[in-house]
Amino acid sequence: MYPKGNKTVADSKTEMTRIVQYNDINGGRRLFGGRLMEWIDEVAGICAIRHCGMYVTTACVDNLQFRRGANLNDIIVVKAHLTHVGRSSMEVRVDTYMEERSTGIRRLINYAYVTEVAIGEDDRPAEIPYGLELKTEVEKAEWENAEKRNENRLRRRKEGF
Amino acid sequence: MYPKGNKTVADSKTEMTRIVQYNDINGGRRLFGGRLMEWIDEVAGICAIRHCGMYVTTACVDNLQFRRGANLNDIIVVKAHLTHVGRSSMEVRVDTYMEERSTGIRRLINYAYVTEVAIGEDDRPAEIPYGLELKTEVEKAEWENAEKRNENRLRRRKEGF
Amino acid sequence: MYPKGNKTVADSKTEMTRIVQYNDINGGRRLFGGRLMEWIDEVAGICAIRHCGMYVTTACVDNLQFRRGANLNDIIVVKAHLTHVGRSSMEVRVDTYMEERSTGIRRLINYAYVTEVAIGEDDRPAEIPYGLELKTEVEKAEWENAEKRNENRLRRRKEGF
Amino acid sequence: MYPKGNKTVADSKTEMTRIVQYNDINGGRRLFGGRLMEWIDEVAGICAIRHCGMYVTTACVDNLQFRRGANLNDIIVVKAHLTHVGRSSMEVRVDTYMEERSTGIRRLINYAYVTEVAIGEDDRPAEIPYGLELKTEVEKAEWENAEKRNENRLRRRKEGF
Amino acid sequence: MYPKGNKTVADSKTEMTRIVQYNDINGGRRLFGGRLMEWIDEVAGICAIRHCGMYVTTACVDNLQFRRGANLNDIIVVKAHLTHVGRSSMEVRVDTYMEERSTGIRRLINYAYVTEVAIGEDDRPAEIPYGLELKTEVEKAEWENAEKRNENRLRRRKEGF
Amino acid sequence: MYPKGNKTVADSKTEMTRIVQYNDINGGRRLFGGRLMEWIDEVAGICAIRHCGMYVTTACVDNLQFRRGANLNDIIVVKAHLTHVGRSSMEVRVDTYMEERSTGIRRLINYAYVTEVAIGEDDRPAEIPYGLELKTEVEKAEWENAEKRNENRLRRRKEGF
Repeated sequence: MYPKGNKTVADSKTEMTRIVQYNDINGGRRLFGGRLMEWIDEVAGICAIRHCGMYVTTACVDNLQFRRGANLNDIIVVKAHLTHVGRSSMEVRVDTYMEERSTGIRRLINYAYVTEVAIGEDDRPAEIPYGLELKTEVEKAEWENAEKRNENRLRRRKEGF
Repeated sequence: MYPKGNKTVADSKTEMTRIVQYNDINGGRRLFGGRLMEWIDEVAGICAIRHCGMYVTTACVDNLQFRRGANLNDIIVVKAHLTHVGRSSMEVRVDTYMEERSTGIRRLINYAYVTEVAIGEDDRPAEIPYGLELKTEVEKAEWENAEKRNENRLRRRKEGF
Repeated sequence: MYPKGNKTVADSKTEMTRIVQYNDINGGRRLFGGRLMEWIDEVAGICAIRHCGMYVTTACVDNLQFRRGANLNDIIVVKAHLTHVGRSSMEVRVDTYMEERSTGIRRLINYAYVTEVAIGEDDRPAEIPYGLELKTEVEKAEWENAEKRNENRLRRRKEGF
Repeated sequence: MYPKGNKTVADSKTEMTRIVQYNDINGGRRLFGGRLMEWIDEVAGICAIRHCGMYVTTACVDNLQFRRGANLNDIIVVKAHLTHVGRSSMEVRVDTYMEERSTGIRRLINYAYVTEVAIGEDDRPAEIPYGLELKTEVEKAEWENAEKRNENRLRRRKEGF
Repeated sequence: MYPKGNKTVADSKTEMTRIVQYNDINGGRRLFGGRLMEWIDEVAGICAIRHCGMYVTTACVDNLQFRRGANLNDIIVVKAHLTHVGRSSMEVRVDTYMEERSTGIRRLINYAYVTEVAIGEDDRPAEIPYGLELKTEVEKAEWENAEKRNENRLRRRKEGF
Repeated sequence: MYPKGNKTVADSKTEMTRIVQYNDINGGRRLFGGRLMEWIDEVAGICAIRHCGMYVTTACVDNLQFRRGANLNDIIVVKAHLTHVGRSSMEVRVDTYMEERSTGIRRLINYAYVTEVAIGEDDRPAEIPYGLELKTEVEKAEWENAEKRNENRLRRRKEGF
């Protein structure tokens, strides 16, 4: 059963376009992983804030794989959308693309699932006042996959760390 | 007469969403004008690069008016699209919105026209290999207004500076 | 008629010298427009604070034209002085020069008029407690030109945005 | 069978201590996830460089879980050591601790496995000239666990992305 | 006579490892003195905070000599330890090393003595609740040298500035 | 005997005015020592570049004493002038003032002597093509004091580090 909330996935979609500058590259002239993670975290956070209307904090990030590098002057597009909303946590999928300057060809260089937790006035996890209205089959499939990832996270948490 | 080029206004539209952080506010806890101008310039530059596929440099910025301030934690959306393409220069309109966190209400806080110049391998202004295909009445009207602004800029340049 | 205040133009003159570093250049190795605007805004703000003794916020910036570019390691001098003081707003002229390292030759690369508004304890525009004492013919001429620019801004504001 | 190389785990151990500043916190006054990821990536990269003596690039980061938040002025200790060395890739474990200022009590707030790839002069993955000499039972157990994680990564890669 | 306190020199030892990035070098591609001083100050401050458990502020830095430069991609290790604890001030010695990437050879490039003052809730110098337990002959010799430097500082203060 | 060169002390005087922002303060809301040292180093470097017309690198900084702290929103003025020019090194005196926003009262918070070395195309110390023309008694006295400080530096270098 899917939630009957009052916000859609489209309501909180977030996009950030950047150009890779000297401040973002390492000595080998490639975009740092660390800078890209910073951008992913900022965009995931804004997406979650747009849904819940509260402050949020990042709880975990799953399996960041950098499929391709990026270099000075490449255009980077970071796009986030919600895949799941729980009591106080939201899962955000973030896709990062690199655009070639001369051809405009866009390639996926990274995707990640980021879990954000809504934080109340008392600085503790708080109930999210909106559910997520799922409008397409893709959104429904993503919700179900998110539930499986959630179970995996709980299992890993019990087992280790 | 409008240009018959091979790229549309939609092809180079650029969006950057940010959240106002401590690094972006002055002592009065408002977003600096200077930081917002930095964001506007970055987004205008990416928009122009997407059209011409070359490096660009900012030639001028018209009449930045800050209609409303923004504060720590506000979400800022900066959107750019092309309004005119000349031999080596492009005019980009950049609209900046502030989104209220709790209600999601979006308000225009600034708009600006930024002129970007394509730069060739010899580090000098270069011919832009694409025209701008205008598809809507709004785009045509913006093109005509851009030509008027251009004349004004040339006139001001002759008179003063 | 010129104001009879207790501070002069010299009292709030502000200068900032910088050297262009990697953090300030784009991929084409030129100083970004956005970084220069950030510097201009900081210097204009300090100039206005020195006059009014209060917090200020930037209300608008007129016609930034970048006459020449600057490159890595160039010395940049940003100089601001007041041209007009109203009830709660001040107009600041900011001139930016680039200095050649080997010859010391200084060239104007940009000038701008920045309007700063004094902000009171209630976070709203506040009355500026000092007028501007004009001591030279140049200062008087600048005051008159500032009043014309002010009328233009009001007219543009009514017409559009 | 363990590798017989000429560098030990101790040879590349890396530590970075930081204090949480305004630039590192979000509006809720907590250390951003994104900033912590940037620090983790920098420390993991230095650890890998110390082992292989070449440039490196981050290939993936597993399961970042933020167990506790950190706040303005907290002391953060980020520690990295190698767990596995392959032909051209290295796995680095990074543990992050938060230290209470008044008591000095240190708590683990995050751990992550970061995979770094050695990059040659041709900007492609290159053979690492040193193996990893394992000296303790703990180091041997970590090596075996790293091989399991590696298999999981390869499987996930085949299945999806 | 040496103090009988309850913290040792080892208790507050602090290490920060960094890699020199574009943001840290000047146009001649060398690490700025200013950036290195920033790192030295951060590490000295953390070392002092670890001892006293309070906020601290830097009171003075003695004779920073940069023996060798460092370049893009060099690994920099900044290490701090206490040499003296007074009523409200602590002297911290900070040694900075540069590590060659390919050989791992580590060279001292700078050392400095930084005086940090503990700051109380009233924003004024405050008494430090812990003495420094000296455990080795080297630590005792450093304490005595610190007292001589202190006398020199007092004398210079009286004579000039 | 004073040098007969073709540049005066006034030719390379350098001033940088800044306002203390969140990025510049520690958790106790005071300007970091480390940030101020970064500004001092930048201004000293520009002053030396203006004299010699070449790249420079910082060789040492004498006795930084922070006489007073500064807080968020304070205006900081950093002023540098040459006191001595040798074969390849220059001594720069840097005075830092804090200005109270409401009264404009300016207080010296720090002064330092920074030694900068001219660097040639071969990345080694190079001969400075200009001497320093001393025009006032104060400049002559500063030159003589600089020579004494130089002797002290050489002596300290021989004795220790």
